[in-house]
Amino acid sequence: MSGNTLGLLFTVTTFGESHGPAIGAVVDGCPPGMLLSELDLQADLDRRKPGTSRHVTQRKEEDKVEILSGVYEGKTTGTPIALLIRNTDQRSQDYGNILQTFRPGHADYTYHYKYGLRDPRGGGRSSARLTAPVVAAAAIAKKWLREAYGTEIYGFMSQLGEIEIPFDDAAVIENNPFFAANTSMVPQLEAYMDSLRKAGDSCGARIEVRARNVPIGLGEPLFDKLDADIAHAMMGINAVKGVEIGSGFQSITQRGSEHGDEMHPDGFASNHSGGTLGGISSGQDLQVAIAIKPTSSILSPKESIDLEGKPMTVQTKGRHDPCVGIRATPIAEAMLALVLMDHALRHRAQCGDVTHAVAPIQAAQSGSSLD
Amino acid sequence: MSGNTLGLLFTVTTFGESHGPAIGAVVDGCPPGMLLSELDLQADLDRRKPGTSRHVTQRKEEDKVEILSGVYEGKTTGTPIALLIRNTDQRSQDYGNILQTFRPGHADYTYHYKYGLRDPRGGGRSSARLTAPVVAAAAIAKKWLREAYGTEIYGFMSQLGEIEIPFDDAAVIENNPFFAANTSMVPQLEAYMDSLRKAGDSCGARIEVRARNVPIGLGEPLFDKLDADIAHAMMGINAVKGVEIGSGFQSITQRGSEHGDEMHPDGFASNHSGGTLGGISSGQDLQVAIAIKPTSSILSPKESIDLEGKPMTVQTKGRHDPCVGIRATPIAEAMLALVLMDHALRHRAQCGDVTHAVAPIQAAQSGSSLD
Amino acid sequence: MSGNTLGLLFTVTTFGESHGPAIGAVVDGCPPGMLLSELDLQADLDRRKPGTSRHVTQRKEEDKVEILSGVYEGKTTGTPIALLIRNTDQRSQDYGNILQTFRPGHADYTYHYKYGLRDPRGGGRSSARLTAPVVAAAAIAKKWLREAYGTEIYGFMSQLGEIEIPFDDAAVIENNPFFAANTSMVPQLEAYMDSLRKAGDSCGARIEVRARNVPIGLGEPLFDKLDADIAHAMMGINAVKGVEIGSGFQSITQRGSEHGDEMHPDGFASNHSGGTLGGISSGQDLQVAIAIKPTSSILSPKESIDLEGKPMTVQTKGRHDPCVGIRATPIAEAMLALVLMDHALRHRAQCGDVTHAVAPIQAAQSGSSLD
Amino acid sequence: MSGNTLGLLFTVTTFGESHGPAIGAVVDGCPPGMLLSELDLQADLDRRKPGTSRHVTQRKEEDKVEILSGVYEGKTTGTPIALLIRNTDQRSQDYGNILQTFRPGHADYTYHYKYGLRDPRGGGRSSARLTAPVVAAAAIAKKWLREAYGTEIYGFMSQLGEIEIPFDDAAVIENNPFFAANTSMVPQLEAYMDSLRKAGDSCGARIEVRARNVPIGLGEPLFDKLDADIAHAMMGINAVKGVEIGSGFQSITQRGSEHGDEMHPDGFASNHSGGTLGGISSGQDLQVAIAIKPTSSILSPKESIDLEGKPMTVQTKGRHDPCVGIRATPIAEAMLALVLMDHALRHRAQCGDVTHAVAPIQAAQSGSSLD
Repeated sequence: MSGNTLGLLFTVTTFGESHGPAIGAVVDGCPPGMLLSELDLQADLDRRKPGTSRHVTQRKEEDKVEILSGVYEGKTTGTPIALLIRNTDQRSQDYGNILQTFRPGHADYTYHYKYGLRDPRGGGRSSARLTAPVVAAAAIAKKWLREAYGTEIYGFMSQLGEIEIPFDDAAVIENNPFFAANTSMVPQLEAYMDSLRKAGDSCGARIEVRARNVPIGLGEPLFDKLDADIAHAMMGINAVKGVEIGSGFQSITQRGSEHGDEMHPDGFASNHSGGTLGGISSGQDLQVAIAIKPTSSILSPKESIDLEGKPMTVQTKGRHDPCVGIRATPIAEAMLALVLMDHALRHRAQCGDVTHAVAPIQAAQSGSSLD
Repeated sequence: MSGNTLGLLFTVTTFGESHGPAIGAVVDGCPPGMLLSELDLQADLDRRKPGTSRHVTQRKEEDKVEILSGVYEGKTTGTPIALLIRNTDQRSQDYGNILQTFRPGHADYTYHYKYGLRDPRGGGRSSARLTAPVVAAAAIAKKWLREAYGTEIYGFMSQLGEIEIPFDDAAVIENNPFFAANTSMVPQLEAYMDSLRKAGDSCGARIEVRARNVPIGLGEPLFDKLDADIAHAMMGINAVKGVEIGSGFQSITQRGSEHGDEMHPDGFASNHSGGTLGGISSGQDLQVAIAIKPTSSILSPKESIDLEGKPMTVQTKGRHDPCVGIRATPIAEAMLALVLMDHALRHRAQCGDVTHAVAPIQAAQSGSSLD
Repeated sequence: MSGNTLGLLFTVTTFGESHGPAIGAVVDGCPPGMLLSELDLQADLDRRKPGTSRHVTQRKEEDKVEILSGVYEGKTTGTPIALLIRNTDQRSQDYGNILQTFRPGHADYTYHYKYGLRDPRGGGRSSARLTAPVVAAAAIAKKWLREAYGTEIYGFMSQLGEIEIPFDDAAVIENNPFFAANTSMVPQLEAYMDSLRKAGDSCGARIEVRARNVPIGLGEPLFDKLDADIAHAMMGINAVKGVEIGSGFQSITQRGSEHGDEMHPDGFASNHSGGTLGGISSGQDLQVAIAIKPTSSILSPKESIDLEGKPMTVQTKGRHDPCVGIRATPIAEAMLALVLMDHALRHRAQCGDVTHAVAPIQAAQSGSSLD
Repeated sequence: MSGNTLGLLFTVTTFGESHGPAIGAVVDGCPPGMLLSELDLQADLDRRKPGTSRHVTQRKEEDKVEILSGVYEGKTTGTPIALLIRNTDQRSQDYGNILQTFRPGHADYTYHYKYGLRDPRGGGRSSARLTAPVVAAAAIAKKWLREAYGTEIYGFMSQLGEIEIPFDDAAVIENNPFFAANTSMVPQLEAYMDSLRKAGDSCGARIEVRARNVPIGLGEPLFDKLDADIAHAMMGINAVKGVEIGSGFQSITQRGSEHGDEMHPDGFASNHSGGTLGGISSGQDLQVAIAIKPTSSILSPKESIDLEGKPMTVQTKGRHDPCVGIRATPIAEAMLALVLMDHALRHRAQCGDVTHAVAPIQAAQSGSSLD
């Protein structure tokens, strides 16, 4: 199956380019009978859309989604759900000169040499704009998981450039443009972004995503382990350069006597594993972290070459996010939701319906992950 | 496709349990006409096999592989290549008591609740022993990539527990049991492992894998990006908790003015991207790092529960690697080889044969990545 | 991968319902660099669309296709090509009473019990209207195959109800509403259809599809043989109940001395095989035949049951094809094109580019298959 | 996924060549907890194996299967089940001269030009011997379907060459070497085969397969309809040239007033559909028929060419089935079982467990299909 489809049973096939007429997705495999309307998708789309603060790109897109199929009288029918988002703020500018050069850190160079030609308008297919249909599709998965298992997925920014953002309160994540779980840090983050923008530069970020009330048993060893598929989905997000589950890279310096989460009758004593054991969900909170690189589109000039290999200087004007990480939280949540949904169906196929009651212990750490 | 197959076109389907009669793999999609014999596979199997030093498990397995099909008169025929490795050092001990408990940090708990039953003998399917057929299968991929494109894949350990291992010389990697690229560090590593073993504890490690002479253009956006599929393969290795491409988590604190690799007529000026741009290989060296958690099987007692949820203490005896990272280097190489091989075929399907000559610049950093 | 995607490398994912807002498809895996516009797709869409003669449904649909992505400045970019066809002649009638009953021979009953609910408007997803996006997608494949290999695909009706239609002249196929390769039969076919319509009944048909200049070597044993994948695609067309390759069911009474096509230096002496040997294309013409059942929607009343299982009588009014076979020729061609395209890419992946010149003999029967 | 794997969730990956060291399969996705031993597989293997009567090949193979994995203490664990069958009666003869020529009607020609080389020993991978692991794998599916739904699958020969074999009694199918459901026909069939063998010729056959107690709702429109996937599986069997569901090619001359199966409160009034409506199982008996071509390996000389394209004569000696149809019944049953099993799991994934009780009517024709 070609590279624009995610999932085996709950599949999302996306299409579109940043400045083409439309972007969208076909969601196949959705269980029938679930109430669904555009309203269910719009909330997450609005969290991701551009122009919501001065710290993100000022492109004006409503990102209004239209459901073209798969829903009858307000319920999913089990047939493909096609989602369409018309682009409305494309730029009619001449992209001819962009076609002649390769912007450093961008996909221009690789698309050109893979395909022999490329759509240069705003990055074409490689634009982060293409995460919009993914977010819309994932809203379907989020809803089903919530209704079927009570699964809740949420993300937050835990670091912006050098600034670490201590987790304080999940309730405030949606109240600031950074998805920071800490209100007191917001002024510092805003000042940081303002100075960065003034300097014509960009920075990276660390995003964390959690899922609680994940059924035990999701994931298929050997290769399609739950954490492996999460890593695939996360690393596929634009600008992501690293993925961690649980203790992640800190595991290197941990001892086995410390890392292996002990079990008590009332639950796990810790969650270094991040919610998977042997690639299968343990019922503990899933804990995922990703590293997002600094935006490559910056005002500062950078050296590059043109199509003939001659040296030149590239300076990126136009509308760009000085930190793509700021809008990445709903995207990372979406990816986690899609992986969980696919594995929920895969599990049901082989093993029958999830039976929560079988677990002898409660995942004690589940609730405390926000503390 | 169920979870025990890796790849879309060059597929590896593995089977077997740690203490069952045999383990193996079926490799499908291999291009025809390549010279292949068991000797081609044995070298990497020997690098991975147990018992090669006092720092790894003392289980005695020759890991002799038999090719059952797909090769005629010494050449691949394009039909499936079945690989069989008989287990020879299974333990006949009674596993009944292991079945009654869940070892902390192991897959016992999740296998039990996913499948309703599990093979307790040495971890069954979740044992790292199952990486042997993967390593054998990947040797086929390595050979083809080398012959077709000159691609070379190699890995090394860059950190053991708290000890960072500076990269010194690729030539010495195979000369020590740690796959360290630095001879002078070996005595320290040995002492560290000896003290750890004496303490009945275990530690984690950081492994890096590189590929040079990777054709430009491998990887399929949006979802099956080269780095996304690498992350999937790597996170699927037993005990891996984190994956980085290029600068990885360091990208968070980098500026865009620093991270985006500039291009000159004679090549890239740096390789923060780690060899992919927009999820497609750029011709620069691929640079991947993984975090391996400390082995969960340790002599020190840990608290756990039994099948009825009652508290108990688990102490793991038997033969175990005090740091699974020590044997992980050939495994990580294998995973990278399989992903590259699959994408080489996928690229050829859509875009025709790779044409090296199209790239206007040489990947200047390719050679220097070891410096 | 869920059931609404066809193909492994050249994939077509369709969506939509007969009376929803739109139908369409996402075509992934298309090689880059091919000239493509809506005009390339419209010709086949027009051959399939309703209302072109009095012998087919009178629904008025222009079936205008819009390309939403994957094409830049007139050329395919290698990214997904989204195709959108708005429905324009939906009926606003109340489908409530249809929801209460199961029309004999229709999918009402099975959709209801599979999904628990169904879209009753014109058959919803099970309508033959959903072949429109397939035909549009296949036009892309047809074009690529023609340009790459000179492959030509064409179909015709060889039987309508009891009336066999002797093959006379391929040139006249497009000149009559039946896709009959025999002008002299057309008056008889028209009279037959008129009497059938008057009787409120329907009939079946036999459609044949051929491909010439098919590269040698397409098809992947064991399971994804070329003929197996053709059978899958053809049997998946609405109303198809049988598929034959080459001699088909006549093979049963043939002797081996007759059936096995002898080879001479200038080509094959016959084509009982229908163009495949061992599931791989031989370079001879591909010859496929399908059986299409009579339309289930007829004016004559039929006995059925309602949702509660109580007996009732169903009489289908509205716009229907009295023989769906009349419009099936471009659909069957489309399916053959999609299978060939997918296998052309699969072959290229494993074995490299097709090399026509290797075949020592010309497929002598290729040209004569129409005689 | 490459061509040697069948199924999406219950997958069978086969390997091996006719005269290599072994053949086998890896079965992935099997639900856990089912009792399984080699005995469960051997019965069908014995029905298929060579040498059971004078009318089939005299090759001596015990076809003893070994389960290498996936079963612990007599129960499936949910991990891959590897099946190994050692070849024991390979011929050590020199195949060099066979390599120089292409046997008419065989895959020699197409394998050679697809792969550039081929294993000539007994047809290599294209041999019908490779159906043995499929039959073994399908025995697992048959058992699960029987235990889960009471599904029963059986086949029989309904025509041998020109001789039609009226269905008389299912109970006698296993009592004769032809799988004929009519004891009185057996002497005629034996005489027919004896004369054919004496003439050095071969003939075709028609095989029918049925499944009863098939759950309602199996099959995934649009493309992976149940009948489409059955057609794929059946056409992929060696020597099959045609597939019919229900009325098959007779549908062409039927009227809609006759074909569409009416429904009564106590069941369907007929079964022209063959058990599927809109590609989804209706609960009626599945009825499939296949056409098997005459064996291409015959003693009578046939004209062909050699590797250089020069004319020559081929005469096939050695051990061959004069009608491969005689051993095809268990193979066709196996294919049907595998498709049903895969779709049973796919259905469960999307729609949850099959609920038999929902169907308001009994499939009245189910029981009578043997009358």
